[in-house]
Amino acid sequence: MSQSIILVLEDDPLPDLSRLTDRARVITAGESDLAGLLPGADVLLVWDFLSDAVRDAWPAEGPTPAWVHTASAGVDRLMFPGLVDSDTQLTNARGVFDQPIAEYVAGLVLAMAKDFRGTYERQRQHRWQHRETLRVAGTRAVVVGSGPIGRAIARTLGGLGVVTDLVGRTEREGVRGIAALPSLLPQADWVISAAPLTDDTRGMFGKAAFESMPDRARFINVGRGALVVQQELAAALRSGELTGAALDVFESEPLDADDPLWDVPGLFISPHMSGDVVGWREALSEQFCDNFERWAAGKPLFNVVDKRAGYVRG
Amino acid sequence: MSQSIILVLEDDPLPDLSRLTDRARVITAGESDLAGLLPGADVLLVWDFLSDAVRDAWPAEGPTPAWVHTASAGVDRLMFPGLVDSDTQLTNARGVFDQPIAEYVAGLVLAMAKDFRGTYERQRQHRWQHRETLRVAGTRAVVVGSGPIGRAIARTLGGLGVVTDLVGRTEREGVRGIAALPSLLPQADWVISAAPLTDDTRGMFGKAAFESMPDRARFINVGRGALVVQQELAAALRSGELTGAALDVFESEPLDADDPLWDVPGLFISPHMSGDVVGWREALSEQFCDNFERWAAGKPLFNVVDKRAGYVRG
Repeated sequence: MSQSIILVLEDDPLPDLSRLTDRARVITAGESDLAGLLPGADVLLVWDFLSDAVRDAWPAEGPTPAWVHTASAGVDRLMFPGLVDSDTQLTNARGVFDQPIAEYVAGLVLAMAKDFRGTYERQRQHRWQHRETLRVAGTRAVVVGSGPIGRAIARTLGGLGVVTDLVGRTEREGVRGIAALPSLLPQADWVISAAPLTDDTRGMFGKAAFESMPDRARFINVGRGALVVQQELAAALRSGELTGAALDVFESEPLDADDPLWDVPGLFISPHMSGDVVGWREALSEQFCDNFERWAAGKPLFNVVDKRAGYVRG
Repeated sequence: MSQSIILVLEDDPLPDLSRLTDRARVITAGESDLAGLLPGADVLLVWDFLSDAVRDAWPAEGPTPAWVHTASAGVDRLMFPGLVDSDTQLTNARGVFDQPIAEYVAGLVLAMAKDFRGTYERQRQHRWQHRETLRVAGTRAVVVGSGPIGRAIARTLGGLGVVTDLVGRTEREGVRGIAALPSLLPQADWVISAAPLTDDTRGMFGKAAFESMPDRARFINVGRGALVVQQELAAALRSGELTGAALDVFESEPLDADDPLWDVPGLFISPHMSGDVVGWREALSEQFCDNFERWAAGKPLFNVVDKRAGYVRG
C-alpha cells in the first residue's frame, strides 16, 4: 500500500505522529494554505480545532479527504453541508476529555459550595471572616448531555453524594429525555451543560431556563459556548435569579478583554481549559494514531460521528 | 430524678437544648463567670470550643462536673491535668464534621489541581490565558490522622481516583503506622493533616517533613494549627520546596490582619470553617442532647475521649 497523505491543520505545538512515519506522509497546513492542500490529502487531522478554516477551505467540487478527524469532542464547526453531505468519514476525540472534565466540574461544584472564591478575596484583604458553607452531598444536579462527558460528570458527582439526573435527547436506561428538563430544573441546585451544539441545543440555556431554576441554583457550561445566551445568563446573575455560574466556553473565544461578562457578579470565567490536563495533547496524538492504524489496515474507524445528528452515537 | 444542671460555656448563637427542658436546668456562663458556676454544675457543655476558659476556671479542689462535652472534634484545649486526672468524663463532637471536612478537602485538592485561584486572578485582570492543569485521578495522597475525619477524607479522595495512604499512630487494617510516614512523604502529591493535637503530633509538619515531600507536593491542614510550624511552611513555599498549601487552622486564631502568612505565595488561608456547613450548630446541639439522654437514663455515653491518648479511640 502506498503512503497515505495526512494533512494537519496546524496548531502549536504540533501533534506527535512519529508512530506513523513508515505509513504516512504528514503535511502541515495553516488556515491560509489549507484550501490548496486539501484536495491532495487522504486524511485531514483538524489539530487546530478552534479554527473555522475547514468550512472555508472545503472544495465545492473535486476530490476531498476520505477521512476527517478533529482533536476535539465537539464537532459543530465541521457540521457544514459540504462535509455533512459528502462520503467523507468524520471522527472525533471522544473519550480523551471525559474524566478530566468530570474532575473540573466536580471541583467547580465543591469550590462554589465552599465559597473558595469568597475566601480568596478575603485573604487578599487579610480578612478573617468565618462563614457557613454548603454540604454537597444530598444536593441535586441536572447534567444536560448524555454522551461520555455528561456521563462521567454524573458518575463523579454521584460519587460525592450529589443526587444527579442525566438528561439526553431521548429517554433510555439511566437517561431522562429532554422533555423532562422543565420538570427537573425547578429542583436543581446545580445545572451542568455538557451537550453537543446542534440546531436543537443552540441557545437552550436562556431566560426561560434560568427563570425556571431556583434562585439558589448554580449553572456550569463545559459544552459549547452557543448553548448559552450569555446576555441572559448575565441578567439572571445580576438580578439574583441565579446564585452563581461558571463558563468555560463562550460564543466567541477568546473572550474580549473589554467584554462585560468578565465582571458579572457570581460568574466564574475560565479560558476553555476544563479538559486540558497535562498530557492531553499526547493523548490526542495517540488517539489519532490508533485510529489511523485501523484505517490503514482497512478496519472500521472508531468515534465515527453521525453527521446528521452532530455527535457520535451510543 | 431531680433536674440536672447543664452549664453552657456560651457562644453566639446559643445551642438549642429545648428538647431537654423537662430534665435539665440550663445555665449559661461567659469566660468571666465560668469559675464561679462550674462547681455547681453536673454537666459542662463547652459550646465556645475555641476558648481556653475551662482550663483557667477548673477548680483545684472540690466538686466538678461529672461530664464535660465539647462541641468540637479536637479536645486539645481540655487536656489539662485537672481534667485529665479527674473522674470527669469527657466527650466530643466526633461524627458531625467528618463528611463536611472531607468535601472541603476534596474541593481544595481539585481547586489546586485545576488552579482555580490562578483563573480567578486572571479573570480579575480580564486575561484569557489557557493553561494545562493536573488530572487528580492517579495522584497520591497521604492523609495523616486515622480518626473518622481522616477516614472520610481518604474515602472521598479514593472515590476521585486518588491513591491514598491513611496514616495513624499504630498500624492496623487499612492504616499505616506513623513509622511509615517518612517513606510515604517523598511520593506524595498531597499531604493532608487531620490528626489530633497531642504531645506526639505538635509541630510534626515542619522543615524536615516539608523537605522530604516532593517539590510538586501540596499540603493541607484541617486538623489543629499547632500540628504545623507555620514559619517553616512559609519558608518551604517561598523557596519552592512545596508547590502549594492550604491552612484552615492556625497556631493562634483568628489570624492577625498583619500576619505575614496572609501573603505567602501558594498559600490558601481559610478561617477555620472546613467543617461548618449550614446546619452544623443544629447538628452539634442534637448530638449533645442525644448524649444527654443517655446520661440521664444511666446509659454509657458515646464519643468518650480517652484522656490519656487525647482522642476518642476506635
